[in-house]
Formats: sequence, structure tokens, C-alpha cells
Amino acid sequence: MIRRDLCTLACILWSALATQASDLLPSWNDSSSKRAILSFVAKVTDKSGGSFVPTSQRIAVFDNDGTLWPENPIPFQISFTIEEIKRQLPQHPEWNSDKDIQAALSGDFPPLLRDHFRGLLHIIFAAGSGMTTEEFAASVRRWFASAKHPRFNKAYDGLAYQPMQEVLDYLRANGFKNYIVSGGGLDFMRVFSERVYGVVPEQVVGSHTAVVYELRDGAPVLVKTMNRPFIDDGARKPEAIQQFIGRRPIAAFGNSDGDKAMLEYTTIGNPLPSLGLLVHHTDAEREYAYDAKPQSSGKLITALVEAPQRGWVVTDMKKDWRLIFSE
Amino acid sequence: MIRRDLCTLACILWSALATQASDLLPSWNDSSSKRAILSFVAKVTDKSGGSFVPTSQRIAVFDNDGTLWPENPIPFQISFTIEEIKRQLPQHPEWNSDKDIQAALSGDFPPLLRDHFRGLLHIIFAAGSGMTTEEFAASVRRWFASAKHPRFNKAYDGLAYQPMQEVLDYLRANGFKNYIVSGGGLDFMRVFSERVYGVVPEQVVGSHTAVVYELRDGAPVLVKTMNRPFIDDGARKPEAIQQFIGRRPIAAFGNSDGDKAMLEYTTIGNPLPSLGLLVHHTDAEREYAYDAKPQSSGKLITALVEAPQRGWVVTDMKKDWRLIFSE
Repeated sequence: MIRRDLCTLACILWSALATQASDLLPSWNDSSSKRAILSFVAKVTDKSGGSFVPTSQRIAVFDNDGTLWPENPIPFQISFTIEEIKRQLPQHPEWNSDKDIQAALSGDFPPLLRDHFRGLLHIIFAAGSGMTTEEFAASVRRWFASAKHPRFNKAYDGLAYQPMQEVLDYLRANGFKNYIVSGGGLDFMRVFSERVYGVVPEQVVGSHTAVVYELRDGAPVLVKTMNRPFIDDGARKPEAIQQFIGRRPIAAFGNSDGDKAMLEYTTIGNPLPSLGLLVHHTDAEREYAYDAKPQSSGKLITALVEAPQRGWVVTDMKKDWRLIFSE
Repeated sequence: MIRRDLCTLACILWSALATQASDLLPSWNDSSSKRAILSFVAKVTDKSGGSFVPTSQRIAVFDNDGTLWPENPIPFQISFTIEEIKRQLPQHPEWNSDKDIQAALSGDFPPLLRDHFRGLLHIIFAAGSGMTTEEFAASVRRWFASAKHPRFNKAYDGLAYQPMQEVLDYLRANGFKNYIVSGGGLDFMRVFSERVYGVVPEQVVGSHTAVVYELRDGAPVLVKTMNRPFIDDGARKPEAIQQFIGRRPIAAFGNSDGDKAMLEYTTIGNPLPSLGLLVHHTDAEREYAYDAKPQSSGKLITALVEAPQRGWVVTDMKKDWRLIFSE
């Protein structure tokens, strides 16, 4: 065990040194945001300093929609869900009297986003329910392979923010374990999280419902249901972090008031050094500009007001990011 | 990233070679059980063979009570819970009319174990409810520091089975990620899992209830409740594996019918090579002997009957283990 740990430590040090030789976070302009990230990582990885954090405690949590990729004109999972609902509609006559599903089909999204996205999650859970987790994953993969974002005309999974990809890589190279903690569907995100973000399925936390285990024709399957819905937003985020991870993170990245509790939990009174960062959508030209009045999800009011007193970094997409998407 | 991966790979190879130089699983007698474990690991780590499994997919799941340490005369968490109930009794007059709590206080355990341990989990959840996760962890630590097992007269956390410790180490040295997937309390097990088994808190899955996030005097806390109970036993085990891990394991270790679904999910129709193992308690002299009629938890009937047709390894503690506890 000791030999293995020493070897792993040597890898981390080597990696860190190799990284320092090149430009760090190249898609970030030289700004207070970039400096805050670099100085936080330097601090917690410096064994000789008083702020060193052992690797096992370097947990970073990232919201997904609006933090790692866009959530406009509607969150990507809603686009997928609407396609799924259309595909399954003939098998579900009861959906004709489901007002959330009807709202989604007619493109009337605001009512779906109220009360922590309750209507939205209802249609997401409904569209996944009754199928096995493998059937659902196959549907998600099919959709990603063909659907295009209406504005950027690219595959949805090609729209991860390049500066945030660099943060994920940089933290990982410095011994952090990155988790996604998102209001998005757990089973939806796990299909692409490793490929797109380098985040393995077991490090994804999200909204979910119960699955039911059964032997179907002698083979084990897990069937998605609509029971025990858990909507991973607001105060539910630190609660899910406790249940799924069981450790307090030392870095949290979000973009909306739905991430406020997660940033509080990460930064307020944490005995370890911590970093909280909010991505502020300020770039209508290259992406979108919104905070108090988002087009879909991503309302950002109180977290933005509290950021200075909490010491949270506010990243101005327009000023701080040299580019938004990979070229 | 590639440099880091190569380096990590070199560590794993080095570790594996170093391990092979010494005796593998030294507390196991040379038996079909030991050979099954060694040949499974050799197979999935052999890059040149057709059964190679990439490290990211080497997930192993372990039941705790009866598989990694004893569950007699009563599961260790019940001993802790009874002490907690006594300590908190003055603050809970309503417990005087709680029949599960009264049964526990009078030492009448059989009714608590029925229906997937419903009564047992009720008292466990009740004794933890209302306190913060940090207060609960402090109680658990206090108990482990002073309580002694009535038969072995050792601290409870000194009673991990040495042969299973070696399996945990051996799998880890071969690139496996070990998870505990147990009916035991999630917050209880996380207090000792890293220290005792080398399993970090985020790789522990267990029975739990909802926690509630709040800012208490300005500081974030998570308060344990009795809401949304989840009892991680039987079919709930593969369901919890899907929710918490999101990958199908390739190795599963258990000792009771409560582990049967987890072993099925791991081994039946798995596209990857897999191993299922049942620890059979056959050693009344050095530990305990039971299966169909356990003294407390750990009933083993149908899984034992199905083991041959499923290809599950049945480990005979008396014959297969050279020693039970570390010396």
C-alpha cells in the first residue's frame, strides 16, 4: 500500500510540474477569476504551506447546465425529452390530458420551470419511465448522435465550455476528484459525462427517481419508474452531496440561485480552504446574456448579491473567457 | 492526460508485480475459493487475454455485516444503537410507547429483523434522527473508542476478517474500485470504512434516510431525519448500485440471501467476466456457524442452493480461512 501511494504521489507531482511548464487555463484571459482558481489550487497542493489539503479531500463539485455547457434556448435534456415524448406518444394516451406534457409539446416552457423545475422534471421522469436503464441510455445516445443545437448548429455534446473543460482537467491533474452535481437527470448525464467531461458515471449526482430491479427472462434489469422523485436543486444539492459523496467539497462551481446552497455548504465555515465560483452569463454575442430573467433555467439573483460577502468568484464570461467553445 | 494515465498504469503494473513476488492472500488456505479469486483477477488484468477489463470498469461490491466482519451476537450497529437509545432516552418520552425501541432495550431482537430488518432500521434511524451528520459521526467515533465485542473482548473495529482485508487490498492493487454495499447505515459505515477497510466514504452505499440542509447560526449543517427511508437489502442492493455507482460491478461478495440480487446483477448475463462469492459461516469455534437459522441477521438459504448453477464461489470459513482475525 505505501509503495503504491508513493508512486501515485510521484505521478501527481510529475503531472503538476509538467502542467506548470505550459500555459495554464489557456482559454481564460488573465483576470481575477483565473488568478483565484490558480492561487486556490497552488495553495491546497503546496505541502509546505499551512493550507495543504490531502488528495483524498480534494472534492470539487460542478453544476452542469449553464456551468459546463449552455442551458439555452432550453436545457438540452428538454430537447431530448420532447423528442422522446413525440416518439412514445402513441403508446401513452394518458399523456393527452397531462398538462406538463402538453405544455412541452406546444413549446410553452415557463410553467415547467416553476417550483424548482417540478413540471420539467415530471416530463423528464415520464419520458424515461417504464424502460430499462439500458434502453434509456440507448435513446440518449441515439439523440446525441443526430440532434443539433438550433443556434450553434453543432451536436449538443460538442458545446461544453472550453474554459470549464480546462478547469476540470486542471483540477484532475492536481489530484482533485471532480463530481457533477446537477439538476439534470442522473441517467441522462451519465451517458455522456465521461466522454465529454472526463467524469466517470460514479461521480455524477443528479435528479432521479427509483429504479426497480427484476429478472426479466432470467436476465437482471433495472426499470425506471416515477416513484421517489429527487430533484437535485437548491438545498437538495448539499443533501445529495452528503448522501452520494459523504464528504464536504472544497470547490464548487455553479451559475444560478439553484447552486447557492451548494456554494454555501462548500465555503461557509469549511475547516479546509475552499473556492466558490459563479459563471455569470454576460456574452449575448458568443453565448447568452442573462441572470435575473433567464430565457429558461438559470435564474441568478441572490447568489450574485451574496457573492462579495461570501468571497465567491464571479466569472464574467464576456471578459474572462478568451473563447467559449473549442475551436 | 495521457502522460498521467501512463504513469498511473505503470504504478498499477509495478504494484501487481511487487504483490506477485510475495504470497497472495496469505490468510487463505490453498483451496478452490482462493484459486477462483486469483484466477478471476489474473484473467481480467491480462491485457493479452480475451477477458481483459479496463480499470475503469473494475468495480467490486462488498456486503459488510457477515461478509467483512461478524454480525453476531447482534450486528455491531445494533449494539451502538442501543447505547445511543439509552443515552437519548430522557429526551424522547415518545420512545416509551415505541414497540421496536422497547424490544431493542429488552434484548428481544427477532421481531426487529423481520421484513428486511424493518424494525432494526427503524431504531437505527430513530437513534440518529434530529442530529447533524457531524454530531452523529462523533457519537459513532466515541462508541468505537470504548465498546468491546462481548465474545472476542476486542474493539468492534478490530474484528474485520483478515482474509477479506486481503481480498480488498488485492483487488485495489489490481486496479479495482471497492465499494461497500450494505444494509448497514450509510452514515455509520462511513465513519470507519476508510480506516478499517481502506474504502473512502464516497465508495460506501448503505441504508439511509433523507438529510435536511440548513444554515444554523449562519453555518451549514445537514440534519438527519426519518424521512424517505431506504433499506439497502435484497433487490434494493442492485437498485442502489445503479443510483450510486451507475455501473454494473464485475465482482460481488456477500454472505446471505439479502445479497442474492446483488450477486445476480453482477454475474448473470454480464458482458464482462464476473465473480460472485458467498462467505459461508461454518466455524463455530473461531467465529460462528449459521446459515438457514442465524442468531441475528445473515439468513442464507436460497443463495446457497442457487450458488452451483450460478457459478458462485462458496467460501467455507472453517476450511478456507487459515485465520479469521488479524493476529
